[in-house]
Amino acid sequence: MSLENYFPIWEKLTPAEQDRLTGCVIDKSFKKGETVLHKTSDCTGLLLIQTGQLRVYILSEEGREITIYRLLDMDLCLFSASCILNNIRFDVMVEAEKDSRVFIIPARIYREIMEESAVVANYTNEIMASRFSDVMWLMEQIMWKSLDKRVAGFLLEEMALEGTGKLKLTHEAIANHLGTHREVITRMLRYFQGEGMVKLARGMVEILDVKRLQQLHEG
Amino acid sequence: MSLENYFPIWEKLTPAEQDRLTGCVIDKSFKKGETVLHKTSDCTGLLLIQTGQLRVYILSEEGREITIYRLLDMDLCLFSASCILNNIRFDVMVEAEKDSRVFIIPARIYREIMEESAVVANYTNEIMASRFSDVMWLMEQIMWKSLDKRVAGFLLEEMALEGTGKLKLTHEAIANHLGTHREVITRMLRYFQGEGMVKLARGMVEILDVKRLQQLHEG
Repeated sequence: MSLENYFPIWEKLTPAEQDRLTGCVIDKSFKKGETVLHKTSDCTGLLLIQTGQLRVYILSEEGREITIYRLLDMDLCLFSASCILNNIRFDVMVEAEKDSRVFIIPARIYREIMEESAVVANYTNEIMASRFSDVMWLMEQIMWKSLDKRVAGFLLEEMALEGTGKLKLTHEAIANHLGTHREVITRMLRYFQGEGMVKLARGMVEILDVKRLQQLHEG
Repeated sequence: MSLENYFPIWEKLTPAEQDRLTGCVIDKSFKKGETVLHKTSDCTGLLLIQTGQLRVYILSEEGREITIYRLLDMDLCLFSASCILNNIRFDVMVEAEKDSRVFIIPARIYREIMEESAVVANYTNEIMASRFSDVMWLMEQIMWKSLDKRVAGFLLEEMALEGTGKLKLTHEAIANHLGTHREVITRMLRYFQGEGMVKLARGMVEILDVKRLQQLHEG
């Protein structure tokens, strides 16, 4: 499969633009757990996900993490090429959550095309608007949803992503997704277990009662 | 003063685009405290601030607020015209914090120009990237900065905006900016007063020790 099968606005590009992109794109694989991007300022290039799953997160000075969004098949990651925009003043990290294969489009080439092409600039705009909406949603969650609701929501999201209720997840990993401490997550999961919503085992959370988790999440 | 004095990329527009914008722009004034935008989905149009100060904030179901950014002279507010972008899935509210005069550019016209013009699309991109950065900064503050640091930072920001250390601010207003409860702010300000950093009076916070507030904020 080549770039044209993954790039949503391929047919709206001029042949010259298509040639430039095809000529510069890099095809790269990442193993599960591998770091894809250390910090935004590296400006690796745009990541276009062929298969797999990437996690985009921010990191505090003390090493705490919070997941801001995930990238799945066909998603495009702008902030790995933040140098295409002058006004990006934050750093994100990206890691592979599953074995992943991505196209990397060098930032300089994309920027040059975007400066000339209203189609590419508007497409970029829509991607950013979508990520912006993700972040606003997350901020509302953090501000106004209690942690039990957020943990319930996270477990349901994982179940949907993995296609199974038996989730291989450490408490540390959940804490890093939600921007809190491992101890806090352990306490919450034990409460969930006591209520019969999940069953805990080493490195594993099994979802037993989807309906109650949904009620908790939405309530 | 007309639109061309305020619109940063005016000279890069075609004469036809300039004419369209000039022909549709609305000049409107808002009194201090007045609501400029009830919710994003109204899609009033782009706001270009001539003079004054607008506050952009989100509102929880329970009526709690948090300021996401302020708009000052020459700033452009995209999210009052979120219908120009398909992927905006959040609502903001906008109110005038000072008597303000703004240009309103109808969303439909702006969108039509943006779809054709790489210059306008890229400009829009840069504005969104800038607001995105503001929101990421805010999220890091909320996640990882304690409230005393955030209150200190907010008072210093207000002092810079107002050009005076005598700030007309209720505890309720500060709580709404920072997304917390009035009681929490009152307790914090009393602590600041006890430490000699501020002096409190009815509807007023006077900053006494800028240096210590800065140390607290950055520490």
